[in-house]
Amino acid sequence: GQKLLLIAGPCVMEGEAHALAHARRVKALAEKHGLPVVFKASFDKANRSSGRSFRGPGLEKGLAAFEVVKRETGLPCLTDVHETWQAEPAGKVVDVLQVPAFLCRQTDLVIACARAAKALNVKKGQFLAPKEMRHAIAKAREGGNENVFLTERGATFGYGNLVVDMRALVQMRELGVPVCMDATHSVQMPGSGGDTTAGDRQFVAPLARAAAAVGIDALFMEIHEDPALAKSDGPNSLDFDMADRLLSEVLAVRRALGWK
Amino acid sequence: GQKLLLIAGPCVMEGEAHALAHARRVKALAEKHGLPVVFKASFDKANRSSGRSFRGPGLEKGLAAFEVVKRETGLPCLTDVHETWQAEPAGKVVDVLQVPAFLCRQTDLVIACARAAKALNVKKGQFLAPKEMRHAIAKAREGGNENVFLTERGATFGYGNLVVDMRALVQMRELGVPVCMDATHSVQMPGSGGDTTAGDRQFVAPLARAAAAVGIDALFMEIHEDPALAKSDGPNSLDFDMADRLLSEVLAVRRALGWK
Amino acid sequence: GQKLLLIAGPCVMEGEAHALAHARRVKALAEKHGLPVVFKASFDKANRSSGRSFRGPGLEKGLAAFEVVKRETGLPCLTDVHETWQAEPAGKVVDVLQVPAFLCRQTDLVIACARAAKALNVKKGQFLAPKEMRHAIAKAREGGNENVFLTERGATFGYGNLVVDMRALVQMRELGVPVCMDATHSVQMPGSGGDTTAGDRQFVAPLARAAAAVGIDALFMEIHEDPALAKSDGPNSLDFDMADRLLSEVLAVRRALGWK
Amino acid sequence: GQKLLLIAGPCVMEGEAHALAHARRVKALAEKHGLPVVFKASFDKANRSSGRSFRGPGLEKGLAAFEVVKRETGLPCLTDVHETWQAEPAGKVVDVLQVPAFLCRQTDLVIACARAAKALNVKKGQFLAPKEMRHAIAKAREGGNENVFLTERGATFGYGNLVVDMRALVQMRELGVPVCMDATHSVQMPGSGGDTTAGDRQFVAPLARAAAAVGIDALFMEIHEDPALAKSDGPNSLDFDMADRLLSEVLAVRRALGWK
Repeated sequence: GQKLLLIAGPCVMEGEAHALAHARRVKALAEKHGLPVVFKASFDKANRSSGRSFRGPGLEKGLAAFEVVKRETGLPCLTDVHETWQAEPAGKVVDVLQVPAFLCRQTDLVIACARAAKALNVKKGQFLAPKEMRHAIAKAREGGNENVFLTERGATFGYGNLVVDMRALVQMRELGVPVCMDATHSVQMPGSGGDTTAGDRQFVAPLARAAAAVGIDALFMEIHEDPALAKSDGPNSLDFDMADRLLSEVLAVRRALGWK
Repeated sequence: GQKLLLIAGPCVMEGEAHALAHARRVKALAEKHGLPVVFKASFDKANRSSGRSFRGPGLEKGLAAFEVVKRETGLPCLTDVHETWQAEPAGKVVDVLQVPAFLCRQTDLVIACARAAKALNVKKGQFLAPKEMRHAIAKAREGGNENVFLTERGATFGYGNLVVDMRALVQMRELGVPVCMDATHSVQMPGSGGDTTAGDRQFVAPLARAAAAVGIDALFMEIHEDPALAKSDGPNSLDFDMADRLLSEVLAVRRALGWK
Repeated sequence: GQKLLLIAGPCVMEGEAHALAHARRVKALAEKHGLPVVFKASFDKANRSSGRSFRGPGLEKGLAAFEVVKRETGLPCLTDVHETWQAEPAGKVVDVLQVPAFLCRQTDLVIACARAAKALNVKKGQFLAPKEMRHAIAKAREGGNENVFLTERGATFGYGNLVVDMRALVQMRELGVPVCMDATHSVQMPGSGGDTTAGDRQFVAPLARAAAAVGIDALFMEIHEDPALAKSDGPNSLDFDMADRLLSEVLAVRRALGWK
Repeated sequence: GQKLLLIAGPCVMEGEAHALAHARRVKALAEKHGLPVVFKASFDKANRSSGRSFRGPGLEKGLAAFEVVKRETGLPCLTDVHETWQAEPAGKVVDVLQVPAFLCRQTDLVIACARAAKALNVKKGQFLAPKEMRHAIAKAREGGNENVFLTERGATFGYGNLVVDMRALVQMRELGVPVCMDATHSVQMPGSGGDTTAGDRQFVAPLARAAAAVGIDALFMEIHEDPALAKSDGPNSLDFDMADRLLSEVLAVRRALGWK
């Protein structure tokens, strides 16, 4: 058994200093719990509900910030890309490229990310059965990359609501790849918050513990030093204290089941 | 914190000897794990998919078998009723009356069960939001019974499939009552098995562990000494070995989180 | 091709005079449009969200009111029953017995209604695939009744919302029985209205026209002379003017497609 | 009232001659029914289930074929784009750019298409509430384009199934834009066909008639001269005879309701 991989960071980059400060705290958090860790942040939230929402610094400034983070902290980094042309430059800086859930069926994007990155995270589409993710794996391999893993972030459940089907973690693992639980996006309520996506933070911990008890290889969570001020996904982000407590619980569950 | 309550037994009574043999093994299983336990069985599966399926011994013979089980094992017993007239005679023999999920909004049935039973288990309808179960609690109290608890057994997710929304366990607990996870019915696939309801037993353990990690007061599972021969719900029933292993896992998760 | 059957009336009986007045207006409405008609009303809303809601006059007074309606108007009548013992007395007075959607899998209830009534309407459960209704037909035939028809009233779509899957009308017709569109219950939003079930009346007409264009044998709608004062289901009931306009539209659609 | 706009053609371009032959038959079909028409075809199915499926001729050859179609038939044309860089070249040739349903929240793509095209069709995401499409309209306007319309093509309904919520047509129209019914993609069953997407052609006509009875401005359907040989979406495509009969029905429904 491998140790749990932690993937954590703010939803969107809010400047280089902000990213670096968060990366340092993410690193300290992982060290405290003895976990391998990847720092995550988005340089461009290209699919915000509203076109007027904050999107981030863009590719160039975003990658520059990742370079600073990597140099100063030594952490591997993850970011998501939305168009094929972004894969190559992003893959030169960050270690893991992520295909967003809405885009998990875009063949060219999956292949481009697979080619450009050391490792690839494909989020399961909210509209897709878990076993259908086998096609994403096949597309990643077509791009020459065996380091692909899949992330659960909830399934469409009527309008304005997502449900996490815990069976999906089992079914995606049966596809032969590591699986990740995205504990913070899974509690989103798309469209329920007017012009932004709402979320219910109180469910992050129960869902993360549940996923840990089912069996996961990685845990993804968005952490912001002050979620109330976060420029994206504040309603479902954790602060560092919450994340610390949650990791203790998640790791206790894993150890109880014989997993590191 | 209270100890986890185990509610276990075959789906449907298959005769007095069968019931008694199962009750003895359920009792031994609970003693091994140090758990309080209720023996469950149905005297009449009044809502089978097909009218030609085995339904059970009926009220009179069923209650007679429960009397034998109680006398011989000392176990408290639970059964489900489908019409109001059954509540009083059933409540004189068994300790817990259960309102089936399809019937959770039948006001008279909930009240009749509340009046007749020491305790009442209302299963959440597959069609209902968790917070709507507050009305079932209010109806039970109208029947003069405060010993009501709620059971999660999956929510309608398209056709022929159920999904367990783990948030429901949190939300129903916030209503101020104990919550129970029905780990075996939650994996049913209604209508996917031709004339009977199919199920996928492989998900029982992951879902039970997940629910334990979220936080539950009781665990409900159908156990049959030979699920392949069970006259109802075989595809989602556990045998005693599976149930034994699952309880070890569930209790390990609970202890890891500080629960008995 | 048969003429469209209209099934209309208030949700719940609000007294004999109220029922009779509504029946007379329902009769006039049907005559204006040249349609066969059944007067519907419930004597007991046994599955209201809240136990404190108005439930109706009960079986005895309800049946007495139906006798008055039948004598004074000559209309055939329909009512829904919730327990088997109600089927026989109700079937002696009304012409069509209806099995509520939540109860469509209760074998005894379907059989009892089939035995007691001239005709039987089984509403499709909100949790059931259309083709699964074949079991309800088989149970009705087991009760010796070939005059069974099936009603669409929406499918569970996440929490607090129903969606009408128009394919269901086609699929249930393929089972060899007439199908009915319940245009007013289909727009309910269960649990979205606090202690009562909300609904959105604006969708009644579009859904009824859509169902007419798919192909139906009967149209069910709840009409109240003043929906704002209705003691049940007001938010989704039509008044007589709305119902009149809607019937004109529905019949125009049918004639355009070659149906009476 | 405007006349119904017909948007029709094969799913994917299968060569210039094939496209031209189909465009001529689409034109004749529209003339027979007196309808304005747009010829549709995809130059690249970038989101096929499997990476091994036929994708089409690509941008350059696809646009060349559209130029031939436009010159030879005079028909306006529509195609879908998957990345922003495709919008400008595609918009120089075709008249309507279409944003695929999975991509309807990609801000840059919507804006790029809005800038590049005379008119813009955004398909509603299978994961989105109808009213949320207001953001797509706002993004299109940000791109300087008022000629935007929205298309219904089904909502995620559990795994491997879509349901058309007819209320969506009403709700999207209330956003102040024309709405289109995609009658052929709406019957897809994603992932139910192994490595390809299955579909059930028998529901195309009922759903199209239903949408016509609700009220639509445009009807989108994929037509192939021999669906059994179609290189994409054969299971849900119509042949020209089916399309002809369906248009007769749809237009009869519209006329019955006072619409052209």
